[in-house]
Amino acid sequence: MVNRGNADVLIVGAGPAALFAIFQLGIYGFRCHLVDRLDRAGGQCAVLYPDKPIYDVPGFPEISGGELTERLMRQAAPCDPRFTFGRSVVALAATDGGAWRVGLDDGTPIDTGCVILATGLGLFDRPPGASAEELVPGPVAQWPLERNRGGIRVDPSTFQAAHVQTAQQGLFAIGDACDYPGKVKLILSGFHEAALATQEIRRHLTGKRPTVAYSTTSKRVRERLGRG
Amino acid sequence: MVNRGNADVLIVGAGPAALFAIFQLGIYGFRCHLVDRLDRAGGQCAVLYPDKPIYDVPGFPEISGGELTERLMRQAAPCDPRFTFGRSVVALAATDGGAWRVGLDDGTPIDTGCVILATGLGLFDRPPGASAEELVPGPVAQWPLERNRGGIRVDPSTFQAAHVQTAQQGLFAIGDACDYPGKVKLILSGFHEAALATQEIRRHLTGKRPTVAYSTTSKRVRERLGRG
Repeated sequence: MVNRGNADVLIVGAGPAALFAIFQLGIYGFRCHLVDRLDRAGGQCAVLYPDKPIYDVPGFPEISGGELTERLMRQAAPCDPRFTFGRSVVALAATDGGAWRVGLDDGTPIDTGCVILATGLGLFDRPPGASAEELVPGPVAQWPLERNRGGIRVDPSTFQAAHVQTAQQGLFAIGDACDYPGKVKLILSGFHEAALATQEIRRHLTGKRPTVAYSTTSKRVRERLGRG
Repeated sequence: MVNRGNADVLIVGAGPAALFAIFQLGIYGFRCHLVDRLDRAGGQCAVLYPDKPIYDVPGFPEISGGELTERLMRQAAPCDPRFTFGRSVVALAATDGGAWRVGLDDGTPIDTGCVILATGLGLFDRPPGASAEELVPGPVAQWPLERNRGGIRVDPSTFQAAHVQTAQQGLFAIGDACDYPGKVKLILSGFHEAALATQEIRRHLTGKRPTVAYSTTSKRVRERLGRG
């Protein structure tokens, strides 16, 4: 059994894929802690185009980044996530017991069973006062992870990332930060990636085989969502 | 150049994945013809649980199958899809010019550039008067396609299916009917599968490399959606 430390799952980033991961993991009883260097949830949606209409989120002929963020936050709320805003994750290390320790830029360590990198464009940092085009590689961009086409290379059946210095399992990448054959940087793909990563995290943390719980038919899922 | 016949893309099924495929393909200027043996759009959502709440569609803390169907139809409407309801696709054959011909159960042939199998549970048929449990394999279940775990095996980077009697390209499977490593039968995965199949269909029909058009930034996409 993996030692889960302070959080079942630590998620770096708080964009749409990260927010939906809270919900997916919550369905199976896992609690997430999200860390984002921005001062609020939503990632690119919140910062780059909070009011600009998006037309390609399934089921929404038109939605703003702000509204999508608000709706994903509301959907995730019953899963009781913890948020740390305005902080960057600068360090990552495998620890004993199959777990991970991340370090924040203020020195705070967080022990966790799994880490999901959902940093979006946030593999890069924007220095204070710089334009959106003047990005420099951020801390995560400097970690020893396998890369492809500028993204973190993942196994598209599990969304596990490969850390080149340890064979330890439990490190994932989803959303615009990840890359795999056929990858398209769409918000809707981030949702799918969060769902498949959830199945592998469940296997990793509990040893359970991935049997999917459906919200329409599972009483337990409805109870966890406060819909009992 | 592939001879596209009567329809750029013929989609078997009209559930959520199929409806979102209309929109994704429409963004790139392709027009779809959907054939479903049911008398309306929505697939399982419309027939099995039109009023039952679903909690795991991203961005919707709660939505009924009926409302989701209505919203996906509205999102797809600017792409001018054609629907044939109450008919089954019973035959499939590769034709000259790299195209496909499907045959309906009333004998109607439809020539098309690509075929997407989005049959959901509809690999199976329910005989008249039978219960939901009394399913028998339908026509698609008898086609010579590679299978895995009861689904149509696809390449998860393109969602192409492999027809065992021809090397012809342009046959796809998405949604609950398809299978690949890590596959989870979630509505949201069907959306992702539709988006990635769209990129491969674009490459197949036009030879264009998959450069993604974003609805927030592409004037052409907005014009096609009547949002110019």
